Amino acid sequence: MTGREPAPAAMAGGRSGGRPLVQKYGGTSVATLARIRRVAQLVAGARRSAPGVVVVVSAMGETTDRLQAQAHRLHSRPPAREMDALLATGETVCAPLLAIALDARGVAAVSLSGLQAGIRTAPHHRRARIVDVVPQRILDELALGRVVVVAGFQGVVADTLETTTLGRGGSDTTAVALAAALRARACEIFTDVRGVYTADPRLVPDARRLDGIGYEEMLELAAVGAAVLHPRAVEIGAAHDVPIRVRSTFHPRDAGTLISREPPVEPRQKVRGIAHQEDVAKVTVVRVPDRPGVAAAIFTPLAEAGISVDAIVQNVGHDGLTDVSFTVAAADLDQVRELLPGIVSGVGADGASIDAAIAKVSVVGTGVLGSPGVAARMFRALAEAGINIEMIAASEIRITATVPAAQLADAVRALHRAYELETI
Amino acid sequence: MTGREPAPAAMAGGRSGGRPLVQKYGGTSVATLARIRRVAQLVAGARRSAPGVVVVVSAMGETTDRLQAQAHRLHSRPPAREMDALLATGETVCAPLLAIALDARGVAAVSLSGLQAGIRTAPHHRRARIVDVVPQRILDELALGRVVVVAGFQGVVADTLETTTLGRGGSDTTAVALAAALRARACEIFTDVRGVYTADPRLVPDARRLDGIGYEEMLELAAVGAAVLHPRAVEIGAAHDVPIRVRSTFHPRDAGTLISREPPVEPRQKVRGIAHQEDVAKVTVVRVPDRPGVAAAIFTPLAEAGISVDAIVQNVGHDGLTDVSFTVAAADLDQVRELLPGIVSGVGADGASIDAAIAKVSVVGTGVLGSPGVAARMFRALAEAGINIEMIAASEIRITATVPAAQLADAVRALHRAYELETI
Repeated sequence: MTGREPAPAAMAGGRSGGRPLVQKYGGTSVATLARIRRVAQLVAGARRSAPGVVVVVSAMGETTDRLQAQAHRLHSRPPAREMDALLATGETVCAPLLAIALDARGVAAVSLSGLQAGIRTAPHHRRARIVDVVPQRILDELALGRVVVVAGFQGVVADTLETTTLGRGGSDTTAVALAAALRARACEIFTDVRGVYTADPRLVPDARRLDGIGYEEMLELAAVGAAVLHPRAVEIGAAHDVPIRVRSTFHPRDAGTLISREPPVEPRQKVRGIAHQEDVAKVTVVRVPDRPGVAAAIFTPLAEAGISVDAIVQNVGHDGLTDVSFTVAAADLDQVRELLPGIVSGVGADGASIDAAIAKVSVVGTGVLGSPGVAARMFRALAEAGINIEMIAASEIRITATVPAAQLADAVRALHRAYELETI
Repeated sequence: MTGREPAPAAMAGGRSGGRPLVQKYGGTSVATLARIRRVAQLVAGARRSAPGVVVVVSAMGETTDRLQAQAHRLHSRPPAREMDALLATGETVCAPLLAIALDARGVAAVSLSGLQAGIRTAPHHRRARIVDVVPQRILDELALGRVVVVAGFQGVVADTLETTTLGRGGSDTTAVALAAALRARACEIFTDVRGVYTADPRLVPDARRLDGIGYEEMLELAAVGAAVLHPRAVEIGAAHDVPIRVRSTFHPRDAGTLISREPPVEPRQKVRGIAHQEDVAKVTVVRVPDRPGVAAAIFTPLAEAGISVDAIVQNVGHDGLTDVSFTVAAADLDQVRELLPGIVSGVGADGASIDAAIAKVSVVGTGVLGSPGVAARMFRALAEAGINIEMIAASEIRITATVPAAQLADAVRALHRAYELETI
């Protein structure tokens, strides 16, 4: 994410000078023409107070899923390159529609594709990483006083002009990367929730909305399933110090949650929230000879296939054989199933088993791992709720336990209560 | 249409050497996933006999109309630039779907956008002219043995990367322009009719399919409403000597109609077909002072707005005043209505009237105007059918009469009979 240095003059964005604002509207926010009109109204409001506004949009509603389903009706494994060309169109439709709605309100606007907006990615499909942002066209349009509407989720490989997509949460990534390249005053992520909560309000009715949270804590929350913002977007925000505000399209007066290096001071406790993740599977490679290099032999093929592994546990037996367990996303399970036979024979294991009825629950907060009381309270609370823990993984600011999928909601509620997150 | 010279080696297209084949499939041919599968089957068949196949696709079914309607629900006059970005997506969806369907049949394929295919246009929107075709990427893909699926109707402005669309019949234009740049053996236009007929078979049940027709005759037929192929595509074919074959997707064993410089020799008569055009309006500028420069004052503003005018008639009165009538496409009528007040006051006329209940019928064939018998027979046939002619326009190979819209079908049938087109 280098990004050319924006010229100070261009940064003025045609008005009083100063840094532009980046806003991102997700799929539910632009699901219908009526909602696109509503978004145009919000953008017009932002335009009145910001010197320049760049809007990143997702595809309308379920468009991406529909296109994906069409491809799968034609092909059990559609080529990734063609899927990118196909799926990118969802955003390419939405961006001009919003520009047209803005123009209808008298707000000069121009839509740009990922290519036109200078979103350059690595030459990989379906999960391409942004390697550079060349925002000159955006700066030129801002200097002309136009709102710039950028199609999210998509990029281009600079030397081949191949269309790429950024994978899940791609439009968040587009928005924060643009905010970084434009040195935006902030990146506002408009979505269908009011911000970042101490736990999923659908599971915990008295979950509390956080006014602010640090990048690292947000990263851990996002990594373990708080779907409000993609972790890659948070990473880019942290690396470039972009203040990110998560807000609701449907309650635009709410300030939402500010994700920043210095979250607003508020009465702090170590634990900031309880995150959870469904659609997790536990994989166990059974009776592996316990010798150096075994872990690499198991995890390298998975890493090469782009599969993320978490919560690795090794149970060493007395016979020099060990069971190695780990969790993967359920979405990666088909690929894992294909790789497992090679892995099992490669390490000389007896076999492998998969348990797809697993979920993860996490306690997140700066320094939680270094505070013995936090972990102890977590395991006590789960035990008192009659919930069996199978595997544990931890980072400096997160402790994750796997629990039976059927007990996930109980686990989240028990932890939210145990850390008294419903009160400040 | 210069097009870089394709390298002879690349032209081999990965197989036995020789010129590639270009095929174009229209919107009804790719309206559903089942039809896209059927098109993939046809393309796979062509691939077996041609050294390389380039396929140009339109948007699926009514996609373009649907996108257009969405834009108009947001804005009474959506900006042309945004409309191009929006409408181009119809083809950008269809091309990867066909590439995926080909891959599912084991046929290696790659989809390309207009940008990737090197379709470069002038910097105008909605009706951009192709200024250059740079087919290097296509040649590279053909050399790898892949079928290349190109999104029709769309192009790019080379220096700004702006997306443009080519207007009505744009995918035909893409196909023939690519065939010219690739020096293709032929350009096959697959559509929902079996070829070019002596008249519209929906109006004249015993209309006959022509096996062959020359570019100029086809151009006149297309210009007056034979919707089977856009005149711009025919023009490019004529300029670059591309044999164009119009065929039916739904009856692929039919050879269709070959449009070429030397149509196959068959018993010839002067008149090749009867064309017609609905949705025409007659405009009359009333009581114009008859002095030099008046015609220019009337027609220059229309030309500048991109409005085509046909069948100009001037009725000079005895008082130095004249009525000037002409026809325009009904689709241009809104724009004409806006321009008329300025035109009327500019030439000092009394006013203007519009008759939207007009249609055109044309007799087309090489040399018809030079053969007095042809025109005489036309007017006699229409008179005998009780059809009133208001205006006449003619070129060397076409005679056009305006008739009341309600009598159009009768007029076409009467002329088809008068020239005995149902028999060879």
